[in-house]
Amino acid sequence: MVALVVQINNKMKPKYLNIIDNSAYLRNISYVDLAKQYQTPLYVFDEIELRENMDDFLTHFQSADFSCHTVYASKALLIPSIVKICKEKGLYIDAVSLGDLYVIKESGFPMNKVVFHGNNKSIEELKFAVDNKVIIVVDHLEELIDLINYCQENNQKAKTLFRVNPGIEAHTHKYVQTSLNTSKFGESIYDNERINLIMNCYKDNKNVKLLGFHSHIGSQIFEEEPFLLNVRKMMAFSKQVENLYQYPLTTINFGGGFGIKYLETDAGLDVKSLLPKMVELVKTLNKQLNLRIKDLFIEPGRSILGNSCVTIYKCCDIKENINHHKFLFVDGGMADNIRPALYQAKYSADIVMKMNDEKNEIYDIAGKCCESGDILAIDLRLPKPDKNDYLMVYSTGAYTYSMSSNYNNMLKPAIVFVSDKPKLVVRRQELKDLMSLYK
Amino acid sequence: MVALVVQINNKMKPKYLNIIDNSAYLRNISYVDLAKQYQTPLYVFDEIELRENMDDFLTHFQSADFSCHTVYASKALLIPSIVKICKEKGLYIDAVSLGDLYVIKESGFPMNKVVFHGNNKSIEELKFAVDNKVIIVVDHLEELIDLINYCQENNQKAKTLFRVNPGIEAHTHKYVQTSLNTSKFGESIYDNERINLIMNCYKDNKNVKLLGFHSHIGSQIFEEEPFLLNVRKMMAFSKQVENLYQYPLTTINFGGGFGIKYLETDAGLDVKSLLPKMVELVKTLNKQLNLRIKDLFIEPGRSILGNSCVTIYKCCDIKENINHHKFLFVDGGMADNIRPALYQAKYSADIVMKMNDEKNEIYDIAGKCCESGDILAIDLRLPKPDKNDYLMVYSTGAYTYSMSSNYNNMLKPAIVFVSDKPKLVVRRQELKDLMSLYK
Repeated sequence: MVALVVQINNKMKPKYLNIIDNSAYLRNISYVDLAKQYQTPLYVFDEIELRENMDDFLTHFQSADFSCHTVYASKALLIPSIVKICKEKGLYIDAVSLGDLYVIKESGFPMNKVVFHGNNKSIEELKFAVDNKVIIVVDHLEELIDLINYCQENNQKAKTLFRVNPGIEAHTHKYVQTSLNTSKFGESIYDNERINLIMNCYKDNKNVKLLGFHSHIGSQIFEEEPFLLNVRKMMAFSKQVENLYQYPLTTINFGGGFGIKYLETDAGLDVKSLLPKMVELVKTLNKQLNLRIKDLFIEPGRSILGNSCVTIYKCCDIKENINHHKFLFVDGGMADNIRPALYQAKYSADIVMKMNDEKNEIYDIAGKCCESGDILAIDLRLPKPDKNDYLMVYSTGAYTYSMSSNYNNMLKPAIVFVSDKPKLVVRRQELKDLMSLYK
Repeated sequence: MVALVVQINNKMKPKYLNIIDNSAYLRNISYVDLAKQYQTPLYVFDEIELRENMDDFLTHFQSADFSCHTVYASKALLIPSIVKICKEKGLYIDAVSLGDLYVIKESGFPMNKVVFHGNNKSIEELKFAVDNKVIIVVDHLEELIDLINYCQENNQKAKTLFRVNPGIEAHTHKYVQTSLNTSKFGESIYDNERINLIMNCYKDNKNVKLLGFHSHIGSQIFEEEPFLLNVRKMMAFSKQVENLYQYPLTTINFGGGFGIKYLETDAGLDVKSLLPKMVELVKTLNKQLNLRIKDLFIEPGRSILGNSCVTIYKCCDIKENINHHKFLFVDGGMADNIRPALYQAKYSADIVMKMNDEKNEIYDIAGKCCESGDILAIDLRLPKPDKNDYLMVYSTGAYTYSMSSNYNNMLKPAIVFVSDKPKLVVRRQELKDLMSLYK
């Protein structure tokens, strides 16, 4: 057998995918071997690509003039193996629940580098966050009052950001500017009355300190302009607040939303180009507006994980309907990836052992769940798979395992990290796990 | 305090809901007490209503001329407590995965009363089903061949139904007839070539027996006509097959889809009226067509569970936006009920301790997850709740817990069954459970 190695340049695919004898490898590790060893469905992360994605943010979100902090947006996937890499690399991590805070702490992460989000934090959660020196992103006035009360009653201190809505709503190619606020998150920067009440709470408070404001303008954004607009709006708003309330602000958190390619036709976003522009703009405005912003935060999640992971499924039967519509059945589905059903998300895929074969067939990839809507991908062009071939769905790192369920008592798949060799980081559920909560 | 008891007739609400001193009770058990004892979010099932819902099917799907079997469609919710009630009442149960089969078996259910569905059964699943004498609903030709091969190689026998698509697609108020097949399930009754191959597999096969055909025409159907049309089509198709292949058929499974009310304005479906009509129609056609159908199956799931359960949430802050849009924040969300986000499903709700108060406010009920789409209900008319009041969302028995996730590391809620007293049947997840699969 001649080992013909072809490096793939398609950006959706894992960066270090190789094709050897028509079969897909992650560097020199065979996806077929991984599927056989760990069974399917299986999430396979390239740990090297994952680390490089983090490095992209750490390298390009950097400045001699500011402390730039990359916060890993953990709702995309929160497991100890990723927390440990974040710790090693010096990233911050965000959290949105007591469960998140618990997993992060159990994984040995320094809690003063955790940023705690959420539109509805319980007293229990605020207490845990304060006690562990977590940076709290306060969502609204009433939450701030709860936090102040807790801190005063217990003689505790808290560092906070405050989430505001700058009136930019951006998703993929579109964005709108609005002075309204249709989101459940944050307070509007245009709501002078509420901002006044909030700032009066902070002013002269010895327990709870406001470092600055937080914004998040959307997800899967492919254009640079909304990010830069957000910088301008947040800097102007910070100036307005500082002037009105004589409250020194040091920090802005610009949130996430950095789009990734799921399909070849997706525009994608080059963070290496965008991030220096954002920092440069802050620098210019800091001077122009006579502000003293020194700490900048961004919160990438999907853009760190997404493209570094594939899900491997076993190809089962092909069903051709009376109207010649073809379904390729696979051994997973909406229980391990609900994004197609939930968001009409689109994915691309290949047959692991037929990488160079002509793609002469068109299939809907149908999952195993007892639900017509359990279709992982529509109209996917593929070579005809043989039974027990493996299908590799690309860019499945974010919002797949983290949203997984036991619907139809499907077992949660395993997660493998691959660097020089594979490493099981999340074990597959077993049948007996299904009974663990039942009386 | 005067104990004023008002019986509520609104069909969405639990049948035995009482209002005492403005507060909701399930008979004489206080929802407030349940919430305090078991914490929130909390699924509360009325076990008496649940049993009565089963009795409705058992009573009205009955005939002197046929053996009528009600199959509990377990994908709505599969937990041992329900399996045990099904066993006691003599219901069948369906399953769609090895996980389902395992949970049903572990719960002590007689496996010869299990009906095994699914568009994509693995060899391992078929083996488990055959070895445990489960009735298998074969989905397509290739699966039938796998089953026959397994049975022949291992000298085993299997009883099967075969899933066909009768070309009726029905949802809520609409249904269409079509000779096409856009679903991943079953083989079209119009696909003579495939039906011929299938029947040639069955014919003279000593191991795998075809009892008859299975169909399922949709979900949340409010009209009787599509169900009766399905009876006519399935009877005619059975006759056609019997004539062509001289294969005696004894059974038809008409599936589920019996609609329930989520909102006061939903039409609902009276199964007490429909089921006798279906049975009577089978009787008439059995005679007319000279068929010998004797076993009839239906598969209700949602219609057994749905209205017998409420989810109790704690009311947290109310946020009024700059555009006077009001959010009521609660301590659960899309992790415990993904139906609003997934299907744009609508729910009704009340404030547990303000049952008779005027509903002067309009809220979107926003969950805790870090996602704009985590809204449990839109434009809900309610009295203004106080903080730490409880919100009771109605009709949450089906497809809530069964589809629940640990998104944002939210803990899965507990489930309580209430008859004369409350009984914890599924314990709440604890923080340490979140780490159980991680290496």
